[in-house]
Amino acid sequence: MANKRVVIVGGVAGGATCATRLRRLDEHAEILLLDRGPYVSFANCGLPYYVGNLIHDEARLLLATPALFKERFNIEVRTRNEAIAIDREAHTIAIHDHVSGRDYQESYDELVLSPGAAPICPPWPGVDLPGIFTLRNIPDSRKIRTWIDSRHPEKAVIVGGGFIGLEMAENLASRGIKVTIVELANQLMPPLDPEMAGYARQHLISHGVQLLLGDGVAGFEHSDSGGLIVHTQAGAVFEADLVLLAVGVRPETKLACDAGLKIGDRGGIRVDGAMRTSDPHIWAIGDAVEVKNRITAQWELVPLAGPANRQARIAADAICGRNSHFDGVLGTTVCGFFGLTVALTGATEKALRRAGIMDYQTVYLHPNQHVNYYPGANPIHLKLLFRKQDGLVLGAQAVGGTGVARRIDVLATAIQMKTTVFDLENAELCYAPQYGAAKDPVNLAGMIAANVLRGDVELAPWNDLEFTEAFLLDVREPHEFQADAISGSKNIPLGQLRSRMHELPRFREVWVNCGIGQRAYYACRILTQSGFCVRNLSGGFQTYAALCRVP
Amino acid sequence: MANKRVVIVGGVAGGATCATRLRRLDEHAEILLLDRGPYVSFANCGLPYYVGNLIHDEARLLLATPALFKERFNIEVRTRNEAIAIDREAHTIAIHDHVSGRDYQESYDELVLSPGAAPICPPWPGVDLPGIFTLRNIPDSRKIRTWIDSRHPEKAVIVGGGFIGLEMAENLASRGIKVTIVELANQLMPPLDPEMAGYARQHLISHGVQLLLGDGVAGFEHSDSGGLIVHTQAGAVFEADLVLLAVGVRPETKLACDAGLKIGDRGGIRVDGAMRTSDPHIWAIGDAVEVKNRITAQWELVPLAGPANRQARIAADAICGRNSHFDGVLGTTVCGFFGLTVALTGATEKALRRAGIMDYQTVYLHPNQHVNYYPGANPIHLKLLFRKQDGLVLGAQAVGGTGVARRIDVLATAIQMKTTVFDLENAELCYAPQYGAAKDPVNLAGMIAANVLRGDVELAPWNDLEFTEAFLLDVREPHEFQADAISGSKNIPLGQLRSRMHELPRFREVWVNCGIGQRAYYACRILTQSGFCVRNLSGGFQTYAALCRVP
Repeated sequence: MANKRVVIVGGVAGGATCATRLRRLDEHAEILLLDRGPYVSFANCGLPYYVGNLIHDEARLLLATPALFKERFNIEVRTRNEAIAIDREAHTIAIHDHVSGRDYQESYDELVLSPGAAPICPPWPGVDLPGIFTLRNIPDSRKIRTWIDSRHPEKAVIVGGGFIGLEMAENLASRGIKVTIVELANQLMPPLDPEMAGYARQHLISHGVQLLLGDGVAGFEHSDSGGLIVHTQAGAVFEADLVLLAVGVRPETKLACDAGLKIGDRGGIRVDGAMRTSDPHIWAIGDAVEVKNRITAQWELVPLAGPANRQARIAADAICGRNSHFDGVLGTTVCGFFGLTVALTGATEKALRRAGIMDYQTVYLHPNQHVNYYPGANPIHLKLLFRKQDGLVLGAQAVGGTGVARRIDVLATAIQMKTTVFDLENAELCYAPQYGAAKDPVNLAGMIAANVLRGDVELAPWNDLEFTEAFLLDVREPHEFQADAISGSKNIPLGQLRSRMHELPRFREVWVNCGIGQRAYYACRILTQSGFCVRNLSGGFQTYAALCRVP
Repeated sequence: MANKRVVIVGGVAGGATCATRLRRLDEHAEILLLDRGPYVSFANCGLPYYVGNLIHDEARLLLATPALFKERFNIEVRTRNEAIAIDREAHTIAIHDHVSGRDYQESYDELVLSPGAAPICPPWPGVDLPGIFTLRNIPDSRKIRTWIDSRHPEKAVIVGGGFIGLEMAENLASRGIKVTIVELANQLMPPLDPEMAGYARQHLISHGVQLLLGDGVAGFEHSDSGGLIVHTQAGAVFEADLVLLAVGVRPETKLACDAGLKIGDRGGIRVDGAMRTSDPHIWAIGDAVEVKNRITAQWELVPLAGPANRQARIAADAICGRNSHFDGVLGTTVCGFFGLTVALTGATEKALRRAGIMDYQTVYLHPNQHVNYYPGANPIHLKLLFRKQDGLVLGAQAVGGTGVARRIDVLATAIQMKTTVFDLENAELCYAPQYGAAKDPVNLAGMIAANVLRGDVELAPWNDLEFTEAFLLDVREPHEFQADAISGSKNIPLGQLRSRMHELPRFREVWVNCGIGQRAYYACRILTQSGFCVRNLSGGFQTYAALCRVP
């Protein structure tokens, strides 16, 4: 039997991983890796930091060269060679060589598509003006660097407040550029629930980034001073010496579409669990494919490197006859800017609602990343979603400093393993004063949720706060209450509650609030056992500020 | 029915947690919390940092006062009141009031013992000399602080190289004191496997700490200059202006023993899953009890705050008629000193062997905590133990800088949820350049282990290296090989392997080595598929240095 011939289109994360995995599994396969760009296996996640000059040397972004692929893996790499058509009957692809200008054909036994996703660039007037950039690859980042180094821009507008936009905000600011972000949605970081994204907003503002939410770009024009003017749909006008478009990415599906491969409703290539397309000899991986969300079972586009790598391995396995299966994504994501870390895993509240899943409960908490008495304690704002029926953990979002990625990684593992909140209560995690607490934030999240499921405390629905007829009780100390409080609430400090219960209504629900939800929980236990009908406002005043005080 | 009367002996982590949990579950119980010391609910894990003056204010260590217990929880706290005897028939305890000097009795319906564990203080000659300390509580730490502030010691000897000893080494060094550690065992941090503890040893040495392993104290005497002289069993002599004894702790079981409660083989109070002792109305929690290791099913003494807290909640639940159950411990532990983090969870190799569990496999890896191209990448030395039969994760140890606690927390959650190495391969964890890698260290550990279980690569047993007759192949680049290599190994760089295979023996096992195990894995795949019989030396030269180059 002749050696298997595998052609891979696209040589960044997915394609390069698939190629080397194939080689490890089959020393005798012929493997050809094509990329239309000048590089393969470059670190696209590092591009913002190269623009920001935190990574000085462009060569650091090149994880492997064609020569290394040849020498180490016996894989032929052809850069600047673009696959332009697939003949599925003949098992051939047509390729355009951008260097020589010639077109040619290659045959394949198995074909892997890893074309990635391209930055969306809407047809706004003036979108092609000099000084307006997108960021996808090394040449893109080099152009932006060159522009910064030669033009010394003072002001930048970033269109899009997603993860790339925020990373770029930090990196442009670190180059001394004043940054404005224009985001069409009413929140930054659209995958997050809005109140959690609110922490990112506050943090950016405190670091001098100007934000315009709920407004889109109308167009661009030259300014008299030689810069750019950004017009928004609502009529706002910003001057900018540099504009970055970071409004999202779109799967590169032209090759697949033209070949008649099945495309899903979200616009990505549809594949099965083995990453096989609708053609049994064509496989697709990475940002170009649709994946199933493990929690909501919805098809999604999830342009993340981790899943792309897993898919690449699975496709290689399947091509070599192994029984590997992609189980879908949790969407675990982390993003850092100006010292803040924002991370999430599993489903958000809005993703659950979008999928019609209503059997869930939310808890908020604001524990410090380590014990308070050790210097440097800072809060992690944590939102946990779990199934009411059985306590299954569905998703988590966290914002804070050190320790955010750690807790989200634990919760991602928990979700992967179908953990309940009762298991989280009992998780045995690292504790020493500089690392955590005897009750880790993950334990606390589990305890708060388990208290609800066991019926020890009921939570008040924050969304109903402005309409409720419940009696609002605040059990913080008077100085806290006087500094700021929910309008209409009555203050009885926790320590006085037992002796002042007669001040509370017997036949009306009492909603209890405190700083972060802990004292209110204690108060709820006292009052419940004394015959009152009470609910805890989850996460206390800190949640109130995030949910109800949106500027 | 009269209100339940619960007496709790010991008011630090376990006792205080149990008391407040009891109150939340039963607003009407009478709860009396006794402690023979002057404080309850203090942060004993913070004591080294108070000595080191990283925590300046002693009051920061007091997490709750008797007044707060009364006001917030309606719990009566009596400090300096020591339980001295239990009358199990009469349901009473005899108490000595250290303030008034009087003895008195209290009755109980349920009694909770949370006496903790005391520092072991062997009867060495001179052990009572001034300047020799142990560290268990706030008065202890205050004495050491006072000694440092008034005597300005230049040299300290710490007897014992466990977690407390190493934390104290850092904190004494931060006060400008030159530290020597004397440890009876041949390694620091006895819970770890020795090669992993070796990283701690190197790190301490590089930070100017003098180490004497495998030697015990013989006695102490005054020096002529007014300081202390420490004599070791092997005849070494150290001068010291301060000595800290940190040779471990022993459960405080006198009260329980005298009352005839069952004591286990390891010397702790024996309890059932509900934390109930051999007397149905007496419960015990915290450092004084024996717990079952979840992996080895052996009884152990595990003086850690996290398990103590869980046990406290479970005892409170059980006393209030709830069906809670303590599932045993993983022994998750973290310790930091001089910027190094050492952490472990689950079983170590020596714990497995001690328990007679031989169906396990070990992999070593040395990935960076985040992608190499982002500034600040540093290795995490990771050892993963898993069951050969099915890949169940049994334990993990990690040493490095940032990111160690995070990976051990993920692995602790994985072990809790009975995760296999195949699940670790697929874990979807936080990745952005400053946080990790598309293949996180946890994924890599899973992949390496899964490769072994799938038969894609066999591991060479490091322990047999000095006796093996295998052909030793080193596939690193010549400059790496020339810098340092395993004696007797032959160098063929990976890139030349395909063309130089004829230099390898066909009928002799080939053991392959590289820097961290990755290139050797590639080489193994090439050679296996070319008919050679090969094994990978797990973790490569970095593991060799740790395992076989012990100074």
